[in-house]
Amino acid sequence: MDVIVGGGVVGLSLAWRTARAGLAVTVVDPAPGSGASHAAAGMLAPVSEVAYTEGPLLRLGVASLSRWPAFAAELAAESGLELDLRADGTLDVAFGADDLAVLDELATYMEKLDLPVERLTGRQCRRLEPMLAPSVRGGLLAPGDAWVDPRRVTAALLAALERLGVPVVRARVRELLRSGGRVAGVRLEDGGRLPADRVVVAAGVSSAELAGVPVRPVKGQIMRLRSPRPLLSRCVRGTVHGTPVYLVPRGDGELVVGATQEELGFDTRVTAGGLYELLRDARELVPGVTELELSDVVAGLRPGTPDNLPLIGPTGTPGLTLATGHFRAGVLLAPLTADLLMAEHVGDDGGPVEGAGPEERAGPMGVGGPGDGGGPGDFRSPGDGGGPRNDRGPHKGLRDGGRRTELRELAVLCSPERFREIS
Amino acid sequence: MDVIVGGGVVGLSLAWRTARAGLAVTVVDPAPGSGASHAAAGMLAPVSEVAYTEGPLLRLGVASLSRWPAFAAELAAESGLELDLRADGTLDVAFGADDLAVLDELATYMEKLDLPVERLTGRQCRRLEPMLAPSVRGGLLAPGDAWVDPRRVTAALLAALERLGVPVVRARVRELLRSGGRVAGVRLEDGGRLPADRVVVAAGVSSAELAGVPVRPVKGQIMRLRSPRPLLSRCVRGTVHGTPVYLVPRGDGELVVGATQEELGFDTRVTAGGLYELLRDARELVPGVTELELSDVVAGLRPGTPDNLPLIGPTGTPGLTLATGHFRAGVLLAPLTADLLMAEHVGDDGGPVEGAGPEERAGPMGVGGPGDGGGPGDFRSPGDGGGPRNDRGPHKGLRDGGRRTELRELAVLCSPERFREIS
Repeated sequence: MDVIVGGGVVGLSLAWRTARAGLAVTVVDPAPGSGASHAAAGMLAPVSEVAYTEGPLLRLGVASLSRWPAFAAELAAESGLELDLRADGTLDVAFGADDLAVLDELATYMEKLDLPVERLTGRQCRRLEPMLAPSVRGGLLAPGDAWVDPRRVTAALLAALERLGVPVVRARVRELLRSGGRVAGVRLEDGGRLPADRVVVAAGVSSAELAGVPVRPVKGQIMRLRSPRPLLSRCVRGTVHGTPVYLVPRGDGELVVGATQEELGFDTRVTAGGLYELLRDARELVPGVTELELSDVVAGLRPGTPDNLPLIGPTGTPGLTLATGHFRAGVLLAPLTADLLMAEHVGDDGGPVEGAGPEERAGPMGVGGPGDGGGPGDFRSPGDGGGPRNDRGPHKGLRDGGRRTELRELAVLCSPERFREIS
Repeated sequence: MDVIVGGGVVGLSLAWRTARAGLAVTVVDPAPGSGASHAAAGMLAPVSEVAYTEGPLLRLGVASLSRWPAFAAELAAESGLELDLRADGTLDVAFGADDLAVLDELATYMEKLDLPVERLTGRQCRRLEPMLAPSVRGGLLAPGDAWVDPRRVTAALLAALERLGVPVVRARVRELLRSGGRVAGVRLEDGGRLPADRVVVAAGVSSAELAGVPVRPVKGQIMRLRSPRPLLSRCVRGTVHGTPVYLVPRGDGELVVGATQEELGFDTRVTAGGLYELLRDARELVPGVTELELSDVVAGLRPGTPDNLPLIGPTGTPGLTLATGHFRAGVLLAPLTADLLMAEHVGDDGGPVEGAGPEERAGPMGVGGPGDGGGPGDFRSPGDGGGPRNDRGPHKGLRDGGRRTELRELAVLCSPERFREIS
């Protein structure tokens, strides 16, 4: 029996995969889906995020993005709920010469990796997104980037778990139960015990206290606006006053504006200053947001790690596995995280699942079929090297090679073993 | 039997005074206290508002402010609820030479009227309010201005009415009942009828449709921030980017920031643009607001009239009386409105009420006792002319003369008869 501590998008995804493999699993969370996943915007944008991160995280992101279409299709089929997954790309815009230079560097880097990207003039940007500010001077389109509604994802995962009969215990975990040098379960706040063969800590920022994990809370304030009709047709990002801001449009006209990054400990207050910055920067990108109705503001705590990479896999302590430290990429990395842990646990390589044919599993990005495992060592693939770069077929560099080899390599990148003090 | 349509601060105040006079009265409102009174900041600031208004409104405001201490003390005693009335003045600040010139003009005007005012340097402003922005170059203190929590006021009025057994019908009024050229009651949305000898329409912006009154909705968005300790000790106002903004501190650490003025019809959406302006301007005045938690944002509709003066008194139609069109001054003018209508109706001049002695009725501003009626024709009084001007005893100019004479003169200023088309 596995016990998964944490009912965010990561913990629930793993629970779902575990149950689908026929294994016994229980999720424990006082309020599933209400933490960082609730605050998240749901950008599945490893490519446009590359500027702010590093190679290994980009590899993880690209590998997980390629899994999203199948993951979403299966989950929608099993839960009966729509996830609002969209794959119309991300447009990164620049206002001044400095911003343009940064985007140009980024484009060159992505081209080197054979990741799809298009350089656009200001006019081309506005042709794609007419509501953009007139001061936008250029942009970069990452046509393969996608996004999803994280609140729908956790709702769908909970529905799917219910159908599979997976217990979701609404309680806080007080501590890990230890026995003979191994972790043997958890003790709940009311004193109750849940024994387990394996405890997976997927508790976001709470993982630190629970399992001695080096994660710290990075506060993010995020705002939702309501629009009678969609203002944008894809995700738009930009750097305003030195801070990155993004706007994510939902199918129902909602526009998500995020997000602050604040190192303030366990503080989830929505502040005047945080909201001010979001509003100011969103107005600079898309002046028309001014007319939209405010529908929601929340603050969440992202679990940041010292090297910005997640902690996924077994620790030095038998019985204790981690799936935390996803920082800003929890939604993006959830399918990959589940695959990594299933591969490690039972040798399941995340291939096709019974009951969902290839058609159902191919999503809007045209990837995710059984043969779509990623390439081993880099982002290029021999078959794609000579083709057109900006063909809107995203991340083709990952289409060859064995899924198992890829998973083994990715597992090394985010193995908790890199931090010796854990357990 | 009176029927008062509208359970905002104006309608409820009148109902309370009517019931106290031993007369039968019923209030009708689908949701008492939830309209403009709920959104209002509760500034009782006729003096600092003078810049944006005109002489007649200033007279009304000063006359009503002098009534507030007694009104609040009686209401608190009868309801058992605290109103958070404070009278520490309003500080109007200036950032540039233009603002300073405007404040100087204003000061001269107020001095001419013998209204208390103090000119301050930037340093003196910051000595009074250390959280003010360093860029504040000067200010004007109106030491007699006060403020109150309008939500507490409507709650207290409802409690007092309940104790007095006054029915508050939670329903919408569909139309006025007319019979033989007079108004004879109201018909409710469910078809039920409430007959009345006199119908008082105190329905704010809904008065237009109900009684053909020339009021229009002027939208105001207003924000409440939560602070562990009070950031300010008095109301602070300023003009930022050409828009006036004010900050009103409550006893519990809440800071109210208001307010937009938008002519958009019956629109009560909280918008990104409105909130942005409030946050931006509040930051300019008091940079420390950045750290405060957002606790509430609402939008209300103020009932504006063509000449910015309220409509208080009988109309050309027998049986129909108005108490509406208070625009931005509904809370300030509520006690005076009740006095004007009681004087008109039963000759009650708003003097002492049984059961509340002068001690109880004297509030923090030191006015409001039985002899404190206002002067007749101007703001000066013979006894005060030679004394020090900035003696912090507010509005002494109104301390002599008969209350009845004053009320008659004030009644003319806001009589609905000035708009012939009404009824």
